[in-house]
This record gives sequence, C-alpha cells and structure tokens, in this order.
Amino acid sequence: MDVQSIGVVNSKFKEPADPEEMRESNSTIIVDSEYEDGLYRIEENQYLQVIFYFDRSDGYELIAQRRKGGEKGLFASRSPRRPSPVGVSTVELVDRKGNELEVKGLDALDGTPVVDIKPHAPVCDNGTSNK
Amino acid sequence: MDVQSIGVVNSKFKEPADPEEMRESNSTIIVDSEYEDGLYRIEENQYLQVIFYFDRSDGYELIAQRRKGGEKGLFASRSPRRPSPVGVSTVELVDRKGNELEVKGLDALDGTPVVDIKPHAPVCDNGTSNK
Repeated sequence: MDVQSIGVVNSKFKEPADPEEMRESNSTIIVDSEYEDGLYRIEENQYLQVIFYFDRSDGYELIAQRRKGGEKGLFASRSPRRPSPVGVSTVELVDRKGNELEVKGLDALDGTPVVDIKPHAPVCDNGTSNK
Repeated sequence: MDVQSIGVVNSKFKEPADPEEMRESNSTIIVDSEYEDGLYRIEENQYLQVIFYFDRSDGYELIAQRRKGGEKGLFASRSPRRPSPVGVSTVELVDRKGNELEVKGLDALDGTPVVDIKPHAPVCDNGTSNK
C-alpha cells in the first residue's frame, strides 16, 4: 500500500539525537505547494498530529533490546525500525506562514518526508484522558 | 513510499457508521502470524496507537465541507479521503490472546488493513497534557 510525501521536515537535527531534546525544539514542515490549499484553517488548531516516514530506517527485528525497558516486541516499542516505517508525533503549531508550519515537539530528522498532517483530536488520541 | 499490512481489523461495523458509536465499541486486531513475535510484552501497555489504511477511501478534495466546522482544508480535518489515506487512533488494549488484540475505541471498519501498532506514549501523543 502506498503513501505520498506531502512535505518535508526542516530541522536543526541532521543526525539521530536525544528524542527528549528533539521534542523541546522547534522545526518547520514545508508542505508541497500543490497541497497548500489543504492547510486552509489549520491555524485554528493548537496541536497537530504529524505522520512521517522513517526514510533512514532499515529493516527491523521482531524482538530486540529497546532503548527503555529491556527486550520487547517491535509493536511494544516506538523504534523507527518497523515493517511500516512511519512515525506519529503530536506537535504544537507555533506559526503558519503560507505552506510553512513552525511546530514544537516534532522528533523527526531534517529532510524527513511528511506523509500526513491531522488536527489533534483528544477523543481519538488521548487514551489516558479518562484516567 | 510503501507501508505493509501487518494485520486486519475484525469489527461489527461493516459499513461507515457514527464515529462516536464506533469509539464506544470493542473490536479485534488479528495480527498476521509472521509478526506475532513483534507483540512480545505489548500487554504491558494499557493504550495503543493503531495506524490503519483507509482501503475504501477514494481520492480527496483539498478544501471541502467537513462533518464539523464547515469548510476546511484536508489537513485541518480527519477525513479518510487524503493523499496518504492512513488513520491513527488511540485505543484501549482490553485483552491479548496470541496474535489477537481486543481493543476498545478503534474507529476502523471490518476488514481494514492495519499498518502499524505502537504503545501510546503520552509524551509524544498528548499535546494537551500540559494544559
């Protein structure tokens, strides 16, 4: 099944870095001009969900030592090495200028293809909201 | 760019239905047996993020009347009709039996291909957690 690149990440992080540090930083999503109309009224959302493609990820292991918590299955981890190498992050929309979205909290490297952007929907995304 | 089906949704909803009603219901994700080891220790997570493919979605409009809030760009909506037709839902993991995950809150139709499953990570997903 196919997904399209609809834009690209512009970030100061050119190499893998500490995810916590990345999530404290601002970066910019440059949306392809052909899709710019699809951003109409996006600035009404304070938070967005960004889906991106781990283009520098290669292969995967079903069970492996993870960054946290020892050995786990890949679906019990957020490793970039997966059968479908997509990442999902909720980010804060800081500013929009035309086809450029300045966001805070995107843990994706410079040059990463973005495949989708959605408004953050607490009812869908905040599993823990009823806790 | 390519994504793989790693399983399929088993749901009582065979046709598009009210999303709120779907999110109140339980459904089952049948993970392909070749990926079952990737579920190792997934049951330690109360909430999962499920990424699925809108296989019955066709085309998209950059700007259109949306179900809520009038005319919006597609990236300001969660419409299934998108350049990359993927959906993301946070669900509650109710039970795991082998390669079958019973979940609550998955708004995907019966037969929908699942392309990825991740543990829900509040630090990544809960944009509103600091509110």
